[in-house]
Amino acid sequence: MINEKMKKVGKEGSAIVELSDYGKKRKKEIGENNVFDFSIGNPSVPCPDSVTKNLIDIIKNTDPVKLHSYTSMNGVYETRHAIAEYLNKTYGSSLSGEYIYMTPGASSGLTICFHALLNKDDEVIVFAPFFPEYKVFIEKAYGKVVALNCDKNTCLPDLKLLKKSITKRTKMVIINSPNNPTGVIYKEDLIKQISSILNQKQKEYDQDIYLLSDEPYRELIYSDVKYPFITNYYSNSIVVYSFSKSLSLPGERIGYILLGDKLHKKEDVYNAIKGAGRSLGYESAPALFQYLIPSCLGVTSNISIYKENRDILYNYLIELGYQVIYPEGAFYSFMKCLEEDSIKFSNVAKKFELLLVPSNTFGINGFVRISYCVSKEMIIKSLPSFKKLKQYYAIKKRSNYGFKANKIKN
Amino acid sequence: MINEKMKKVGKEGSAIVELSDYGKKRKKEIGENNVFDFSIGNPSVPCPDSVTKNLIDIIKNTDPVKLHSYTSMNGVYETRHAIAEYLNKTYGSSLSGEYIYMTPGASSGLTICFHALLNKDDEVIVFAPFFPEYKVFIEKAYGKVVALNCDKNTCLPDLKLLKKSITKRTKMVIINSPNNPTGVIYKEDLIKQISSILNQKQKEYDQDIYLLSDEPYRELIYSDVKYPFITNYYSNSIVVYSFSKSLSLPGERIGYILLGDKLHKKEDVYNAIKGAGRSLGYESAPALFQYLIPSCLGVTSNISIYKENRDILYNYLIELGYQVIYPEGAFYSFMKCLEEDSIKFSNVAKKFELLLVPSNTFGINGFVRISYCVSKEMIIKSLPSFKKLKQYYAIKKRSNYGFKANKIKN
Repeated sequence: MINEKMKKVGKEGSAIVELSDYGKKRKKEIGENNVFDFSIGNPSVPCPDSVTKNLIDIIKNTDPVKLHSYTSMNGVYETRHAIAEYLNKTYGSSLSGEYIYMTPGASSGLTICFHALLNKDDEVIVFAPFFPEYKVFIEKAYGKVVALNCDKNTCLPDLKLLKKSITKRTKMVIINSPNNPTGVIYKEDLIKQISSILNQKQKEYDQDIYLLSDEPYRELIYSDVKYPFITNYYSNSIVVYSFSKSLSLPGERIGYILLGDKLHKKEDVYNAIKGAGRSLGYESAPALFQYLIPSCLGVTSNISIYKENRDILYNYLIELGYQVIYPEGAFYSFMKCLEEDSIKFSNVAKKFELLLVPSNTFGINGFVRISYCVSKEMIIKSLPSFKKLKQYYAIKKRSNYGFKANKIKN
Repeated sequence: MINEKMKKVGKEGSAIVELSDYGKKRKKEIGENNVFDFSIGNPSVPCPDSVTKNLIDIIKNTDPVKLHSYTSMNGVYETRHAIAEYLNKTYGSSLSGEYIYMTPGASSGLTICFHALLNKDDEVIVFAPFFPEYKVFIEKAYGKVVALNCDKNTCLPDLKLLKKSITKRTKMVIINSPNNPTGVIYKEDLIKQISSILNQKQKEYDQDIYLLSDEPYRELIYSDVKYPFITNYYSNSIVVYSFSKSLSLPGERIGYILLGDKLHKKEDVYNAIKGAGRSLGYESAPALFQYLIPSCLGVTSNISIYKENRDILYNYLIELGYQVIYPEGAFYSFMKCLEEDSIKFSNVAKKFELLLVPSNTFGINGFVRISYCVSKEMIIKSLPSFKKLKQYYAIKKRSNYGFKANKIKN
């Protein structure tokens, strides 16, 4: 009688949240510091002090009627234009604030884009491993997810496969760089190649194919890679951004959708975005945080903390002989499992109190995601467990049946 | 190629916003104080000082990682339980925080309920005049709006019509009290009668019919009417609430969905709500405002200011001979037009710089909505225009063709 699909989605929840809930329970059983919860991508570094200061200043110094009033549904004019100006300065782009639509975070930005652009059974190509909610959001908009396996050694898109997989029904390709769950970055050359394929296919099918870049981790980069801002490379590009990770404000729900300056039928697409936002009851992004943003552009939380975490964890895992994709950005490490089935491996890791997300959650098998947005202390304390996990499999392999492996149990 | 329905919804926008945009333009032409913009329901009274103080205290005194972190998708535990406790104390109900789901405002709350409960072509009964976005939200969830005309003298539901209109496809009935756009309140007796009809029909069709109470104006009541809290009267009831109006925080997007304690298959319905919120990319309500709420329960902005506005406006309009529904709550006045077509009447009113929303926006003809959440000064300054509008129609009537009426023009 009620909507059974929604009941199912609500009941099953997310595998990541489930693992994190298990972690909370387990901590109560054996103590907070004895469980190594690497499940959730919740920033562990505080927001910059300037965010706290500016929030207080805005609240103190703005007429509360104006401050807390409804904003335009597409967002505060000054904020949209400040964002465009900042991006143009940073990436040499030619964007206009007129085609920015403020959203409560990236999840809503993605949802609004899917509802604005997809018609029933339109195909959206994603590269596995991918953020699992893409599927939930796309299917809610009656689109179809076409997941393409990546190159298992680099976790980067397989371009031949991409070329083969684009059909007349392909409406959109999603990229996510720095990537959740792998931490890899799509370099300029790769973006150029993807653009070239899409341009060719647009011509072949005489239709628009949107390249949607989901980039909440854009500022979380630990090398001096040049970030290729997609509107500079591909005309039909759409950026979905969130300040959740760069400013450590995930709970506050603030981000935006941005249309490339050369997007085909930009006005129509922007209207469809406004229509989707309106129809889905989004009303607007939170006003206070919209007013905060102009003072925080180009500012980030102290990401050197994540870099240090990454280095400690990555170096140790490599030393132990694990195979790990080198994470250049975001705060995730993607590690090959020591058996084929990632769920089984994740369950074995639990014996050593390591909570690692099995990669089937992200659409491929054989890996686990390790979120290193946790305290350095926890990482250091967890290292012996990674060692025991390795030993467990070594013994299991030697014994061929694993009956001796229990000796390694914590 | 893109979603044409969404493009249309985005392009047409809301008639109310359109009128308000006209007002902004007009103000630039003839001066801020010479346009009497009664179009928008944006609170004009500041939030309570305690809200400002508590916001600053929370920001200053909470670990920023904890404060701005993702909350549970259904909301902060303490906030949900504080709300239930407050409601139980105020209305003698027996609600549990376990069945509260925090939302970014009422629009999202409504949307989430529609997607959670409706299957394709399910019918939702609304009483005209009604908040126009109901239709946008319900149709996006593939439901059908069944709008029932009210009694034109009281603007209250026609119960005989309700009884006749419930079918096997009726999934839900929406009430909105204090009402937007009329300001009327549904008294206890009316709620009892609606409940009785729904109970009878549930039995007749052997199916659940939900009574959804959209009540963002619950605290904006200017008489000593007892507010009948629906979970006390009808088992299958759902409350959608927003703090937008009571605390003057419409831009901040904070509210909730609440399931009645005796709701049938409560667990399933709550799961469907979680599923809808998740599928629509809602993630959670803004964290900072979730943490604010427990300190603000039972607190409201200074609503005596609205009451004073109402009295000045209502008394003067009645004195002039207009027919106005007596507004006991919210901040809207619903006035009979002086000609049949409410759009034409609204256009004539513009000649006198009065921006009044034509009632066809709300699903019936013959009225205009006057939002008196404006400054007292504006109301006083606007009164001569209401007088001129009346005179215009008086002369038009006498002349039978209206050619002399232009004399009254400003």
